[in-house]
This record gives sequence, C-alpha cells and structure tokens, in this order.
Amino acid sequence: MRPSGRALDEMRPVSIETGVTKHAEGSCLIRVGDTHVLCTASIEDRPPPFLKGTGLGWVTAEYGMLPRSTGSRMRREATAGKQGGRTVEIQRLIGRSLRAGVDRVALGERQITVDCDVLQADGGTRCASITGGWVALRLAVNALMKAGDVRTNPLGVPVSAVSCGLYAGQPVLDLDYPEDSEAGVDGNFVMSGERMIEVQMSAEGATFSRTEMETLLGLAEKGVAELSAAQLAAVA
Amino acid sequence: MRPSGRALDEMRPVSIETGVTKHAEGSCLIRVGDTHVLCTASIEDRPPPFLKGTGLGWVTAEYGMLPRSTGSRMRREATAGKQGGRTVEIQRLIGRSLRAGVDRVALGERQITVDCDVLQADGGTRCASITGGWVALRLAVNALMKAGDVRTNPLGVPVSAVSCGLYAGQPVLDLDYPEDSEAGVDGNFVMSGERMIEVQMSAEGATFSRTEMETLLGLAEKGVAELSAAQLAAVA
Amino acid sequence: MRPSGRALDEMRPVSIETGVTKHAEGSCLIRVGDTHVLCTASIEDRPPPFLKGTGLGWVTAEYGMLPRSTGSRMRREATAGKQGGRTVEIQRLIGRSLRAGVDRVALGERQITVDCDVLQADGGTRCASITGGWVALRLAVNALMKAGDVRTNPLGVPVSAVSCGLYAGQPVLDLDYPEDSEAGVDGNFVMSGERMIEVQMSAEGATFSRTEMETLLGLAEKGVAELSAAQLAAVA
Amino acid sequence: MRPSGRALDEMRPVSIETGVTKHAEGSCLIRVGDTHVLCTASIEDRPPPFLKGTGLGWVTAEYGMLPRSTGSRMRREATAGKQGGRTVEIQRLIGRSLRAGVDRVALGERQITVDCDVLQADGGTRCASITGGWVALRLAVNALMKAGDVRTNPLGVPVSAVSCGLYAGQPVLDLDYPEDSEAGVDGNFVMSGERMIEVQMSAEGATFSRTEMETLLGLAEKGVAELSAAQLAAVA
Amino acid sequence: MRPSGRALDEMRPVSIETGVTKHAEGSCLIRVGDTHVLCTASIEDRPPPFLKGTGLGWVTAEYGMLPRSTGSRMRREATAGKQGGRTVEIQRLIGRSLRAGVDRVALGERQITVDCDVLQADGGTRCASITGGWVALRLAVNALMKAGDVRTNPLGVPVSAVSCGLYAGQPVLDLDYPEDSEAGVDGNFVMSGERMIEVQMSAEGATFSRTEMETLLGLAEKGVAELSAAQLAAVA
Amino acid sequence: MRPSGRALDEMRPVSIETGVTKHAEGSCLIRVGDTHVLCTASIEDRPPPFLKGTGLGWVTAEYGMLPRSTGSRMRREATAGKQGGRTVEIQRLIGRSLRAGVDRVALGERQITVDCDVLQADGGTRCASITGGWVALRLAVNALMKAGDVRTNPLGVPVSAVSCGLYAGQPVLDLDYPEDSEAGVDGNFVMSGERMIEVQMSAEGATFSRTEMETLLGLAEKGVAELSAAQLAAVA
Repeated sequence: MRPSGRALDEMRPVSIETGVTKHAEGSCLIRVGDTHVLCTASIEDRPPPFLKGTGLGWVTAEYGMLPRSTGSRMRREATAGKQGGRTVEIQRLIGRSLRAGVDRVALGERQITVDCDVLQADGGTRCASITGGWVALRLAVNALMKAGDVRTNPLGVPVSAVSCGLYAGQPVLDLDYPEDSEAGVDGNFVMSGERMIEVQMSAEGATFSRTEMETLLGLAEKGVAELSAAQLAAVA
Repeated sequence: MRPSGRALDEMRPVSIETGVTKHAEGSCLIRVGDTHVLCTASIEDRPPPFLKGTGLGWVTAEYGMLPRSTGSRMRREATAGKQGGRTVEIQRLIGRSLRAGVDRVALGERQITVDCDVLQADGGTRCASITGGWVALRLAVNALMKAGDVRTNPLGVPVSAVSCGLYAGQPVLDLDYPEDSEAGVDGNFVMSGERMIEVQMSAEGATFSRTEMETLLGLAEKGVAELSAAQLAAVA
Repeated sequence: MRPSGRALDEMRPVSIETGVTKHAEGSCLIRVGDTHVLCTASIEDRPPPFLKGTGLGWVTAEYGMLPRSTGSRMRREATAGKQGGRTVEIQRLIGRSLRAGVDRVALGERQITVDCDVLQADGGTRCASITGGWVALRLAVNALMKAGDVRTNPLGVPVSAVSCGLYAGQPVLDLDYPEDSEAGVDGNFVMSGERMIEVQMSAEGATFSRTEMETLLGLAEKGVAELSAAQLAAVA
Repeated sequence: MRPSGRALDEMRPVSIETGVTKHAEGSCLIRVGDTHVLCTASIEDRPPPFLKGTGLGWVTAEYGMLPRSTGSRMRREATAGKQGGRTVEIQRLIGRSLRAGVDRVALGERQITVDCDVLQADGGTRCASITGGWVALRLAVNALMKAGDVRTNPLGVPVSAVSCGLYAGQPVLDLDYPEDSEAGVDGNFVMSGERMIEVQMSAEGATFSRTEMETLLGLAEKGVAELSAAQLAAVA
Repeated sequence: MRPSGRALDEMRPVSIETGVTKHAEGSCLIRVGDTHVLCTASIEDRPPPFLKGTGLGWVTAEYGMLPRSTGSRMRREATAGKQGGRTVEIQRLIGRSLRAGVDRVALGERQITVDCDVLQADGGTRCASITGGWVALRLAVNALMKAGDVRTNPLGVPVSAVSCGLYAGQPVLDLDYPEDSEAGVDGNFVMSGERMIEVQMSAEGATFSRTEMETLLGLAEKGVAELSAAQLAAVA
Repeated sequence: MRPSGRALDEMRPVSIETGVTKHAEGSCLIRVGDTHVLCTASIEDRPPPFLKGTGLGWVTAEYGMLPRSTGSRMRREATAGKQGGRTVEIQRLIGRSLRAGVDRVALGERQITVDCDVLQADGGTRCASITGGWVALRLAVNALMKAGDVRTNPLGVPVSAVSCGLYAGQPVLDLDYPEDSEAGVDGNFVMSGERMIEVQMSAEGATFSRTEMETLLGLAEKGVAELSAAQLAAVA
C-alpha cells in the first residue's frame, strides 16, 4: 500500500495553470500533487556566443528551490555562494530534455531560458520542471510565431517526465516524497510521446534487474501519456 | 496624473493570502498591485550562536527575486555566486524592521527566518516583503503559542511598510514600477502603527527639502494604516 | 551626560588634511574625533559601459576598514572572499550621496572612483567618508578643470553627512562609538547645504515618534553647517 | 565502420595497473584504449558527521581532469574557482555507483574517498573511473581486512561501467571520443555482474525507441562481463 | 646615476612613527621614502587550533594595498573576491620572516596578527612591511610583558628587510619604484642583524652570476644595519 | 646520516620520460626519487592580451597536486574553490623561472602554458616541476620549429632547479620529504647552467649565516649540472 493510498500505477492529480506572471513570454504553475513549480520561459534575441552565425537556436534551463519549499528550511544557494551539485545536475537535465524536443533550425538564432523554481516540494520536482517547462516554452514559441519571428513550428509532441521506482518491493508510478525517500530503486523517464529522451535509473545502495527496469519503463509510458494530455490541454 | 490613474494618496489593491505552503510554520502570498511576494517564516529551536545563553530570540530575513519576476530576465544570484548589493541591503532592512516589532525576551531562545521571494515585481518589493513578512512571522508565532512553547505574546502592532515619492513633481503614495523608475525622490517608511521604525529617503541625483519630506511622511502614515488593517484581517 | 563630556549639540573636532597621497588626483585624511578616514578620488577617462555615448559622467565609491581600525580585529574582507553586507550598504550610500551633488553633464564622459578607507574607527565612519569623500572629489575635479578637461564646474554646495540619535533618552549630535553602540534610535543625514540627499533613520529593536525625528533633523542641520564650512576651508 | 576499425561489440584494450602510488591505501592506473585514469582510495578512520554513531561507513568520490588531458587545453578548475557542472555530475555518479556495491555495515564507521584523475582522455572517462575506482577501493578494503580493522568483506561482485551508443545509426560498445562526439544517443551503464546500478541514457537533440534501448543494454552486458574479469584479475 | 640622485649604496630616508592607532596593541607608520605602510599587531589570547596544547605561540601576517596607493588605481581585493597571488606570496613571507625572530615557547599559547597595509607605494613595500611589522610586534610584546602575561622576552635582534638589485647594470641598495620596474635582477633580503632569514633573488627574464649575488648581499648588509638602528630607536 | 642513506651531495635518481600524453605539444613525466610530476606544454597561437602587437611571446605555468599525491589526502583545490597560497607561489615561481630561459622575441606572439601536476610527492616538487617543465617546453618549441612557425631557437641552456638545506646540521643536496620536514634552513636554486635565475632561501623559525649560504650554493651547482645533463639527454 502506498502512503497516499494511490494505486500502484496512479499518478497524483496534475494541474497546469498558464499565464501566471505578467512579464515572461511563457509561464505556468504546474502542480503534481503537492509539488508546485513555477516555470517561465524568457526569450533573448541573441543566441549564446558559440552559436553566433550558425543559424541555430538554443534552449537552456535553470532550476532553484525556495528555501522553505521543503520540510525543513534549506540554505539559500545565493547565500551559500554557489549552486549545489544536485541543482546543477537537475538544470542540466531539464535543458537537455527540452532541447531534444526542439528543431533548432526552425527556432532560429535566439535563446530561450526556462526557469523552474520550486515553490513547494513533495518529490518529483525535476520531472514536474521538465513537464511544466515545456508548457512555458511552447507558450513563448507561440508568441514568437504569432509575431512572425518564427515561421516553422520548432516544437512537436510534448516533452514530459515522470518518476517510477520500487517502493516496498512494488513498482510504483510518480513517487511522492515519502516514497522517494524510502525507494531502493528509482528512475526518471523523459519522453516525447512514445520516444525516449533520457532514462536515469539509480539504485541508492542497491541493484536492480533488467526485468525490474522493464516494468518501471512500462509504468512511465502510462504516466507520460497522461502528462502529455495535460500539457496539450494547457496550451490549447 | 499617475500612469495607473490612481489618486495621489491611493494605494494599489492589497491582498494577503495565508497558509500558501504546507511546510512553513507561517506563510503568505502578499499582492500589492502587480507586486507578488511569497513570504515564509521558519522556526529553528536554537538561537544563533551569539545569543546562546542570553534568553533572547532572533528574527532574521532573506530576500530574493525569481529571475523572471522582472520585465527583462535578471541573472540568478545562485548562478552569479553571490547576492548583489541591493539584495543584501534589502534583506538587512527586512530583518531589522521585523525585529523592531518583536519582544525578544518573550520569544525566547529560538530563531525565526523570514524568507521573502518575489514572484512578480512591479515596484515596492521591499515594502511588500516587510508587510507580508510580518504576517508570516505572526502566524509562526501563533503556532508557537498554541503549542505552549511561547507563553507571552512577543508581537504587538503590525510592522508595515510603504513607499512614497515625488513623481512628476507630485507627492504620491505607493509607487509602482513606472513611477519608481522616474521618481526624483523616493522614500521607504517602515512603521508600527503611528511609531516609526525605519525611514529611508533618497534622492537619486537630486535633493529635497524638509517640507517635501514632511509631506511624504504624511502620505506614508495613511498607507501604513491601510496595510496594518489588511495584515490584521489576514491573521484573524 | 555624554561619555565624552560634549554638549548634546556639539560635534567632535573635525580636521581635513588634503593632498595626503602623491598618486591620487584628489585626496584627504578626515578626522572626526577619533574616526580617521583616508579618502582618495581616482579619475578614469572612460565612463562605465552603460554610459558610453550618453555624454554623462559617473561617480562611484568603495569603502573599507583596515582590520585593526576597530577595538577588536576584524577579519580582512579580501581574505573572507567578499565584502560584507554592511560594507556594501555603506559604499552604495557614499556613491549615491556624492552623485546627488554632481552635474553629470558638466562632468562629461568619465568616471571618478572615491575610495574611503577607515584607518581608525570610533563611530560615524560612513558620515566621515561622505564628508571627506566630497573633498577628495572636489580636488580631483579642480585638477580636471585646471587642465581644461572640464569647462563647467560640475560641483556645487558641499555634500556633508552627520549622524544623530537618541542616547540615554536625549537627542545628541555626532555619535561616537560608545554612544552609537547604546543608542536606541539613530540616523544618518546626508545634506547639501539646507537640502537633503539621504535620510536613514533606524531603530534597532525599538521605534520612534515623528517629533523625535524632527528634533534629530534639527541637530543634523547644525552639524552639516559646521562640516560644510570645514570642507570649504580644506579645498580653498 | 567505426573510426578505430573495431567491431560493433568490441571493447578497446583494457589494462589495470595496481599499486601505482606509494601513499594511497589502494590505487590503480586504468587504461581503456587512450583513456587513462589514475584512481586512488584514501581511508579516513572517521565517517562523515551525518553517520556518526550509526555504525555505517561511507564511500565517496571526486573526479578531475588534468588541464591537458584533452585535445585542447581546458581551464584548470582550481583556477576557475569551482568545479564545473559536468565534473560535479560525474563525481556524484561515481560515488553512488561504488556505494551500491558496498555493505556499509561491514565497512564500519569510516570513510573511503576515491579520487579519479584523468591523465589522458579519449571518451568514456566516467566509466573508466568507476571501473578503476572499484579496483582502488577493493585494494584499500583488502588492507583494512588484512589489518583486522574490517572483519566481514564489505565488497562483492565488481562494480563496472561501460558506455554504449548509436553511432552512424549503428549500436556500438565502448565509445571513444570520435564516436562520442558524433553519437545521437548514448548511455552509461553501471552494473555489478548481471545486476544494474545506474542506467543513464541520453539523446542530445534526438530521441530513441524502447527497442534501441534494449539493444544497447545487451551490448553493455557484454562489455561489463569483460571489464569485470579484468578487475578481478587486477586485484587477484 | 639613480633617478633619485642617491648614491648606489644609499637608502631612502626612513622614519618610523609608533602608536599611530588607538586600538592596536602595537602599531607604527613606517615611511621608507615615499613608501608608507601602516603596521598593527593584534593579540589574541588563543593560539591557532593546530597549536592548542603545545605551549607554543604563533605570529602571522596579512598584507594589503589601498586601491589608490599606486600610480593607477588597482581593483580592491575585497571586491575582486580574493587576494591576488602577489598578495598571498608577500603575506606569507612577512609571517615567516617575523616568526624566525620569535621564541615561540617564550611567547606562550597566543597568536599575534601583524597587518601591513600600504597607504602609499613607491617600491619595496614588502621590505617596509617586515621592518615596520617587527616594530608593531615588539610594541605588542612589550605590552604583554608589562602586563606580566609574558615573562621571558621572546624577541631578539630586530628583523629587518631591504631590497637590492642591478639597475642599469649597477648594484643598488633599496630600489624605489622607477628602479624596481627597470631592474633586471632584484632581491629581497630579510635579516636579523648579521644572520639571514630569507633571501629571494629573482631575474625577470634574465640571469645573474654568483659574483653579482655576493655584491648585492653586501649592500643588503649595509641597509639592514641602518634599518635595525631605526627600529631600535623607534621602540626605545 | 641521511634517512635515505645518500651521501650529503648525492641527488636522488632522476628519470625523464617524454611523450607521455598524446594530446600535448610537449610532455614528460619526471621522477626525482619518489617525486613524480607530469609536465605538459600547451601552445596557443595568441599571446595574452597585454602582449598583443608587441611581437613578444609568453610562457606561463600552473601547478597542482593530486589529492592523494601526499602521505595523507589533501583537499582538492577545485573543491575548496581556490588555489592555496603555496600553490600560487609555486606556479608563479615556475613561470618566472621558465621565462628567464626564453628569448621572447624569437618565440613570437604566442603563449605556451606549462602544467605541472604532481602524481606523487616526496619533497622537491617545485624543483622537479621546473626541471620537467623545461623539457616539456623544449619539446613544444621543437614542434613549432619543425613546423616552421618559429625560425630562431628561443631556448638556450636548460633551466633546472634543485633544493639544498641544512639537515641535522649538515648541508645536503636534493632534500626528500623526511629531510625537508625537519630542515631548519632550505633553499631552492633555479639555474641555467652556471647562471642563476632564482634563489629562495628560507629559515623556518631559524636563521643562517652567509657562510652556510655559500655552502648550499655550491651543492646546488653540482645538482644542477646533473639535472641539466638529464634534461638534454631526454630531449635529444
């Protein structure tokens, strides 16, 4: 039995509210259960220096957690003087994931920065960031297309992400914090429809078999299908 | 005429939503017009080292802006590797202001950290942070009192803050960003009812007379009375 | 009674020695009682990047304390790896204050950096820095005018600063360290003659009334008049 | 055809030379083709603070590249003032991977730090670091057991890692740099015998199917079997 | 001919003014020509952690230059976020040099920090810092002895330092900045009477013979004798 | 008697293996007894900014120690966030020493960076770095000459370095770690044949006489002659 009473293959309720800040070209507040992430997409007309003259665009991401988004207050990274290893790892993952779903030629020589700031955390913040980040990105790209700055749609099927893991020996979908902190094996699956973008499976202090991996992958496919529908509904 | 069409002595609409995050001992989302600040108060059972054994409590504050809380994206301070001068100045002001309204003996040997994170900025973020910060602090202290950890109420009249300035030659209350960026003289007034805690008046590239100062002070008194009522309503 | 035996409205002795370093375009050693600050003004022919092509000049300031300028040795900020919050706050105040007294069109596209380094501290170092900083700035500008690089005098009435506060319940002018560390309320007043540039009043752990504020303001006006005379004498 | 002329499922030659530094409790120089990594294991008698009194041991890892281990010189991270995101990500992976193969109760309250420093890079440095890191760890643990400080063997089947990817549309084992820089999809597989510890598959700017993932996994199993044999031979 | 008109073996005028700050246990302002360094010695009752329980004392030093102590303004190290390589090198030299002249058993378990801050630079600041630093140290130790905290005099013959070099092919004593910036070979000689503590000879882009080294050493002995007399006179 | 059983004027065995990394333009692994340093020379076609347009080249150096190159593991400088004072001092010495042996006009407008990374330390790492660094530099310059990019040989007699000191009252050549950690006086001598480049003699907590200095200098001359021969043999 899961602490939340959910079925093994049941996602938490997902809501995606768009247009939540007046300044960003694209924005949403994604809620996956009690995990709440504010995602904004900011357009810059210039690409990063290494792309100048290539005709290619760039999408990058930054990630942060408010100090009291968690059960006990964390030190503010701006005060600590640097981003921690976990933060760096996550924002690199978000950036890579979103770029995999972008036609960078169609985007043209500009940069879009997706900021994912966790207002409240309850497990799965990196997955919520990718899923919500794609919505913010989609809205920003829509604005570019409406303004005629981008002619060909550079985005396709939504990029979505979900975690799965072995909790109390059972394969479960969309781990919340109580599950995540106990899970022997957990994985993050970034997909675009039925195609995979990133698979990160990890066993903290344990190992897993190929069969277990297959099972979790199956759960992920179910979760991503639901997330994808929510993303499309939000940007409709 | 003010860009917003407000009367010279008219505040923007103020709303204070409490209990907005499930983890913090006290929290609120304060909206002063389009300026939105998420305030949380986190209790630590131990005081900072310099107060150990004194019987005194401590209240401190940290301030941050989400990268796209502003019209154009700002660099994330965690990435830059340090908090900027303006950030440091503001969070020191918030901390001093809130401490002025606390009976540190009654609070006892513990520390409360108030985090003020700007989700959307449109001028007056430091004032909104102090005003909302007091609400978060009040709620956290209520929890301590309810649990019997604090016996005597350490908080009195709300601590509130508002900005006033000379805009297009006219004294105006509660400057929004378009006014703030044009104002020759502006001031931040932190008050607790009719008593003053901090007055910071500044003339970027200009000077002002004693009479002008008096006029702005009068406006501030009006604004603080309204904010104070909103704070009390929120924590009722 | 004040620890120093001074009258309530009595400044400490002020001396301003100019030309104290052979390299700087303008320099002075200001002594306000036992507070000694070495101020230098350094001219750069180029303005900061954000002013390029605007025809406007810039004045900025940096502040530091020698490690043993204080009663017990402080950690050197260069060793600590960053300037502390108080330092940043003070140097921003010095810069803003001096700029308020400069005609930036007349100064032309160049930058003057005023360094204020405290050799010995006994309260009021930020005020002494502003007062002495103006003298260094005036001397540097004189050099520019003499050389024909600046035609119209960009400086007017001296910018001066003094602190006032409530000590043992009495309003006092020009707090020294023993007073400053005990004062419930204290304020820093930056003025240019009878016009005000910055007012910063603060009550560490206390509040003050509007009447008290008025009284301190009156004391500040007396102090600034005396400082202004000393500044003019020094640069004559 | 692969640039190196290797068969699709052919590893580069692997050599593991042990005892290469006289100070470390365990050490080896692992060469996987032209990728050369110096691995040392350093024992500290005290565990990290968060494990004090738990009876559990800890294994952690750090990773670095010599500035000219690469085709063009990279900036030294000590000079840059921080470890880059890629470095942090890799050393966290190495640490997690090695810990998965350790019985932390049997290890007892001590810490072993595995340093992996790349002397020459030609692709696959993180995999070589894990594989060589396990050898250094094994040797250090052997020393502890020989000295009687550890009674029960805390290590089991070797932890080994290999990369696989799609190069020019073909699934290949053990990518070298020319392949790695062109591969659309690549994955790192950390295994302990037939059990998996970490799977990290990534498609820079592309996607992959579940079938492709299965194929790469099969290649990885072949590579890990060979690496495991080399590790056992080295520590025999 | 030297730019200053001095004889080849002629020092610049040396003056040492003691008791220049009211807070430090020992202090002096040393002037060697136009090089002016403020030296303070600060006593801490506790030794550094690595000496706890050894009965030994410690002397350490820090060095800094005011931003406009030089011909063109240097960036403030506190702003840059770290001490430069030259600064670190110099303060390590000052610390080692002063420690060589201290009986650390007689000093007892305490630490004295000598701060050397250059107010005006004209070559030879590290030598002036050592020479003046010893005077500040001597005065601080005198205070400890007078208070009965130290019984046996831990200091002997003054530690003094002077630079010599080859300027325009001639061996010269006590290089000023115009000479220093042109000298092919220069050396810093730290001595205690006739005994040597540190010799640092360096040829930027050149080499020197053993004979030239001997000649410079002879000049240094002359300079140190004069400095030593000035130090003893200052502390008498 | 020396701990190693060597004669007072006997060097440790020296070996210099060249071409040890496939990427660097010049490289060697120098072993002086148990001190092993990997030296690489990397050519950049552009000089540092301050030399642009002067026709002069530049040689600079960086130094590092692997964390477990020493008896107990040292903290990695990249993790600590900065290079320590000792590291900075050493790499500045290596750079200055190598530049003294370079005709910068003949080298032309380019920069060569020599990286010296200590794989295993047993005393004398800075001297081994200079000696091995020259070999790497020589090989890189040979490549430039072979390619016709440099016409006139910019290097002459090898730059070599050795340490000497007073150990147990006796003058000894080439101190190993057990000697170095006990020596009252030690010196580093950088020479080019019979000419001197740098002399750094230091007495940690002690002093030395002119006669002792002369004796050590004699030993150094013997050591440098042997090193020079080894360097020439290696690059032959």
